[in-house]
Amino acid sequence: MHPSVTIPTLSEAKELVDTRLKDYTRARMVAAQHLHERYGALWGSIDTLVNSGGKRFRPYMLILAYSAYAPEESNLEDILPAALAQELLHQAMLVHDDIIDRDTIRYGIPNMTGSYLSIYEPLLPSTGERRHMAEGAALLAGDALLSDAYRLLSTSPVAPEALQKATLLFSQGVFTVIGGELLDTENAFLGEYTVSAETVALLKTAAYSFEAPLTIGAALAGADEVEIGLLRQFSDQLGAAYQYQDDLLGVFGDSSVTGKSTETDLLEGKRTLLIEQFEQLASAEQKQAFAGLFHNQELTSDDCHAARQLLTESGAKAKVQATIAELELAAEHTINALSMPENAKQEFRGLIQFCLKRDS
Amino acid sequence: MHPSVTIPTLSEAKELVDTRLKDYTRARMVAAQHLHERYGALWGSIDTLVNSGGKRFRPYMLILAYSAYAPEESNLEDILPAALAQELLHQAMLVHDDIIDRDTIRYGIPNMTGSYLSIYEPLLPSTGERRHMAEGAALLAGDALLSDAYRLLSTSPVAPEALQKATLLFSQGVFTVIGGELLDTENAFLGEYTVSAETVALLKTAAYSFEAPLTIGAALAGADEVEIGLLRQFSDQLGAAYQYQDDLLGVFGDSSVTGKSTETDLLEGKRTLLIEQFEQLASAEQKQAFAGLFHNQELTSDDCHAARQLLTESGAKAKVQATIAELELAAEHTINALSMPENAKQEFRGLIQFCLKRDS
Repeated sequence: MHPSVTIPTLSEAKELVDTRLKDYTRARMVAAQHLHERYGALWGSIDTLVNSGGKRFRPYMLILAYSAYAPEESNLEDILPAALAQELLHQAMLVHDDIIDRDTIRYGIPNMTGSYLSIYEPLLPSTGERRHMAEGAALLAGDALLSDAYRLLSTSPVAPEALQKATLLFSQGVFTVIGGELLDTENAFLGEYTVSAETVALLKTAAYSFEAPLTIGAALAGADEVEIGLLRQFSDQLGAAYQYQDDLLGVFGDSSVTGKSTETDLLEGKRTLLIEQFEQLASAEQKQAFAGLFHNQELTSDDCHAARQLLTESGAKAKVQATIAELELAAEHTINALSMPENAKQEFRGLIQFCLKRDS
Repeated sequence: MHPSVTIPTLSEAKELVDTRLKDYTRARMVAAQHLHERYGALWGSIDTLVNSGGKRFRPYMLILAYSAYAPEESNLEDILPAALAQELLHQAMLVHDDIIDRDTIRYGIPNMTGSYLSIYEPLLPSTGERRHMAEGAALLAGDALLSDAYRLLSTSPVAPEALQKATLLFSQGVFTVIGGELLDTENAFLGEYTVSAETVALLKTAAYSFEAPLTIGAALAGADEVEIGLLRQFSDQLGAAYQYQDDLLGVFGDSSVTGKSTETDLLEGKRTLLIEQFEQLASAEQKQAFAGLFHNQELTSDDCHAARQLLTESGAKAKVQATIAELELAAEHTINALSMPENAKQEFRGLIQFCLKRDS
C-alpha cells in the first residue's frame, strides 16, 4: 500500500466521463445510421438524452475505488470503458424505469418516449397507438444501452481474471436492481407492507448505485475478497442511508432546492421507511388522522402540512434521522477497516458527506 | 484440419441445451427468491416460459460452427455457456417483441405479460392499469434475460482473446437486431417502402439468428478472420432466404402445418419482399385490384384467395422463389469455400435444407 494515491475529484471524473460518453454515443449513432437512417435516428435520440444530464456519480465511484487500490503502474484509461459501462447501465435503467412510470421528461427535456412521441406524430394520428409505438422505441433504446454497457465492459484492457470478476459483479448488480425495481413498482399496489422499505433500499439503491461501481472498481485494481466484502458492507450502509435521506427530502425538503415537489410522495402514498416508522410509533389518534392525509390525489397543501406535522410529532422523522446517523457511523467504521492509503479513505469519507449532507 | 470431426445433431444439441437451460433458470429463480419472494415469482414465470418451447436453433448453430473448427482437444462443455447465452438473448428479444406486438401467448401458454396479467388480477382491478403493470414486469424479465445472456457468455472457460472476440460479435448481433426490430415495427406505419424487405431480413433475421451464433461458435474455436468473413456471408445468404421463405409460407403456406394463419400478413399489410416484387411486376389493373385486397382487417377468405392469385399471376411469387433459389445456390458456394472437414460442410448443407425445404 502506498502512503498516498492520486484520486480524481467528482468534477474531474465527470468531465472525463462526459467527453467519452459523447464520443461513444456519437460513434454508435454513426454505426446505426450505417445500417439504416431510421436506426440512426434512435441513437440520435439516445445521444441527445444521455448527454443532457446526469451527475456521473456511478462512474466516479468506480474510478474512486479503482484509484484507491490500483498498483503504481496503473492507468486510469484502462478502466474508463468500465466506468462508462456503469453510466450506460444507469441510463438503460432510467429509460425503462420511465416507461413503467409513464414519464416523458428527463433532465428537463423529452426522454426517449417523449422524443418518439414527436417523431411519430406525423405518422400515427391515434394518440394511443403513437404512445404505444413511442414506448416500443424507448424499450429498444434501453435494450441497446444495456447491451452496450456489457460491450464496453468487455473491452476493458485489464487482466482476464479481473475482467471476469468485474463482469460477474456487474451482472449481479443488474440482477439485483431488476428485483428492486420490480418490488418498488409492486409496492404501490400490494397494499400491506409485503416489501419493506429496507429491502427496496438495499436492492434498488445500494446494490446497483453503490455496490456495483465500488466493488467493480476494486476488482479491476485487483483488490482481494476481504476488501470487496468490506466495500459491499459500506455500500449497504451508505446506500440505505442515501435512500432514507432521499425519502426525508421527498417530504420535508425544500422543493425550491430539490427541484421536486414535497407533496408527490404523500399524494401517491409512497411506502418509505418514514411511513413504516410512523405505523410503528404513532398513537391510534395520530394514525386515524394520518389515514385521511396520505395516498390521496386530492390532498391540499394544508393536508400535506398536517401530514408532515404528524410524521414529526409521532417521532417517525426523528427515528429515520437516527437510523441515517447510525448508518453513517457504521459506514465510517467500515472505511477505517479498509486497507487503502489514508488520502483514499478521506475521499470515501467525502462520499458519505456528499450523499448525506445534502439538501437536494 | 482433421478429415472428420464429431458434430452433434440438432436434437442432440437441443437436449443438451434444454437440460442446461432448465438448470440455469431454476438456479436464478432460487437466487431471486433469496432476495425476495416476489422477485422469485418473476423468475418462476421466466422459468416456466423459456422451458415450454423453442427449437434451440441458435445454440445448435453455435455448437455446429464451434465443432467444425474446434481443435482435437476441445470440449463441448466449454462453449455450452455461450450456446445458452444465445438462447437467453433470443428469449429476451421474444419477451420484448411480445410487448411491442401486444401478444400475451407464446408456445401456447401465457407469455410474461400473460402470466403477470393473472398474478396482478387480484391486486389491480383496473384492466388498463393491470395490463400496464404486467407489461412492466415483462419488460424487467426481458432485461434480466438479456443481462444474464452476457453473464453466461462471460463465464465461458475459453482463451481470453476468443472470449473478447465472441463478446464483441454477440453485442454486434444485439446492436443489429435492435435496429431490425425497430425498422420492422416502423415499417407497419411508414406507408411507403422506406425500409426495404431485404434490409429488415438482413438486420432482423440474418444478423442475429444466423451470423451471431455461427461467427461466435467459430471465434470460440479460434477460427481466423477469413473464415469468420465467409460465415458472415453465408449467414446473410441463408438468413435472407429463410426470411423470404417465411414470408411465402405466411401467405401461401398450409396453416394446418405452419400453425399460423395465412391471412394475417395480408390483413395487416406486412410489407415483405413478395409485396415489393408485386409492386415491381404487376400491371396497373393488377395493382388496382390488389389495393382492395391488402392491409384491411375486413378481408374475407375469398379476398385473400384473390390476393394470392394476383401475387402468383403477377410473377411476384415466382420471383421470390427464384431469389430464394439464387441465395441457396450462393450459400452452397460459400460452404464450398469454407476450410473445415467435409463432414462439417455436410452439416452446413443440412442447415440450408432445414431452413429452406420446410413447410412450417
